[in-house]
Amino acid sequence: MSAKRSIEDDLRVAHMLADAARSITRPYFRASFLEASSKKHNEFDPVTQADKDAEYVMREILALERPDDAILGEEYGLSDGTSGYTWVIDPIDGTRAFLCGSPTWGVLIALYYHKKPLLGILEQPFTQERFTGVTGLPAEWTRTTLRGDVQKQPLKTRNCSSLDNAVLMTTFPEIGTPEEKKAFDAVRDSVKLTRYGLDCYAYGLLAMGQIDLVIEAGLQPYDIQALIPIIETAGGMVTNWQGGHCYDGGQVLAAGDAEIHKSIINVLKR
Amino acid sequence: MSAKRSIEDDLRVAHMLADAARSITRPYFRASFLEASSKKHNEFDPVTQADKDAEYVMREILALERPDDAILGEEYGLSDGTSGYTWVIDPIDGTRAFLCGSPTWGVLIALYYHKKPLLGILEQPFTQERFTGVTGLPAEWTRTTLRGDVQKQPLKTRNCSSLDNAVLMTTFPEIGTPEEKKAFDAVRDSVKLTRYGLDCYAYGLLAMGQIDLVIEAGLQPYDIQALIPIIETAGGMVTNWQGGHCYDGGQVLAAGDAEIHKSIINVLKR
Repeated sequence: MSAKRSIEDDLRVAHMLADAARSITRPYFRASFLEASSKKHNEFDPVTQADKDAEYVMREILALERPDDAILGEEYGLSDGTSGYTWVIDPIDGTRAFLCGSPTWGVLIALYYHKKPLLGILEQPFTQERFTGVTGLPAEWTRTTLRGDVQKQPLKTRNCSSLDNAVLMTTFPEIGTPEEKKAFDAVRDSVKLTRYGLDCYAYGLLAMGQIDLVIEAGLQPYDIQALIPIIETAGGMVTNWQGGHCYDGGQVLAAGDAEIHKSIINVLKR
Repeated sequence: MSAKRSIEDDLRVAHMLADAARSITRPYFRASFLEASSKKHNEFDPVTQADKDAEYVMREILALERPDDAILGEEYGLSDGTSGYTWVIDPIDGTRAFLCGSPTWGVLIALYYHKKPLLGILEQPFTQERFTGVTGLPAEWTRTTLRGDVQKQPLKTRNCSSLDNAVLMTTFPEIGTPEEKKAFDAVRDSVKLTRYGLDCYAYGLLAMGQIDLVIEAGLQPYDIQALIPIIETAGGMVTNWQGGHCYDGGQVLAAGDAEIHKSIINVLKR
């Protein structure tokens, strides 16, 4: 396998995973039979049957298509592999949004190799949008109509000349620790507009050139890895708050413009 | 006209307005030529050509279909009428979300008569969802596929047994004045989950039984009137923070369940 392995074929598998997750999660979305249980006792950290089923089926596909690869998934943890490749998947990023009926959650699929994610897919099953990034290829947005036609557009981050023109998104105003919130608030106070609540979808809007910044903290590897190749191949940057890599999650700063990225690092440092 | 006037015919006109606004706003959404100007000097209160064009065309339709009715619109203000009926319209509620590419803004259309809104439509042009409420009729959600098929579902708010089961939404964590924020934060601290950022779309999710509460402040009449008949005919309540009517905007509390509504009034009062 490894001799013949091509990124194009890995992308084919990634799309198979996204198609399966779309089919599985969509009927649960806004369904009367949807129920959530909490994974933690001291806070509401929800998981649904849709999360579990979608990850289970993606793992079944990978067992057939990529039996030697490792898998790291939100719901079923790490399964070892021998190939050096790891599929890093979050069947529903934004389970809270999913449970609220908001079409801003997504399926995240990354392929990690040699200490970086090589490809990423963000799939939104209700709007039927898919954001795809593969190292070395142009990033792409597609939307499938219910008739099966596919609209396509290249993804391109936008330039942003100064902080006071920048539009920032994050999911929770609480951000993370009190120190993290303080650093975030300094950025919030220096940009034009801050919006909340979109989970992974905010990164899609960044790749699309609709917004300039996403800043979050406390992320897991499966929350961010898929989004890195999408944003990078669209022209943006995704790092931690110090400018280093964020493949392991934690604090994340995504920017569409390198200059703004540098300015924000300075604001976060203060 | 007034002798023959029926709510069914008013609803036909309301759908004409929503169809027109959908057609006009959608091509601007995420378009490279979209630009915003700010209506205020001291803060970013954006308006776009999409807002202006959509309201203009809705006014042209009303000039033909309902020449004797008054119109109150966000962009062009109040035009007097003689019939006692007022169309209360917001061509894009959530212009900031619209500018960020987030599919959570909406077109709002209400018909106000005898001191209350008789019908309301919330239209989301990207997801092609429409939430409709007419006094005396069951509330309805439709989604038009790009092929032109229409999915239909009744809208029904959900029961919510206690505050610690409730899911709350609001647009901005800042809410309004410091006192309003303090009152809101007391509610936030007593519910299961609080989410931000969805503008009018949050009220659609409430009517759909996906969430339990929306609490906002500083609204205009055209921000809320359309949503009242939708939520009320779906089984919920929309009042100000004291339990009185909120047709004129200001502080708004929308709840899917009458018991929870009562509990929240008590929390807000403290």
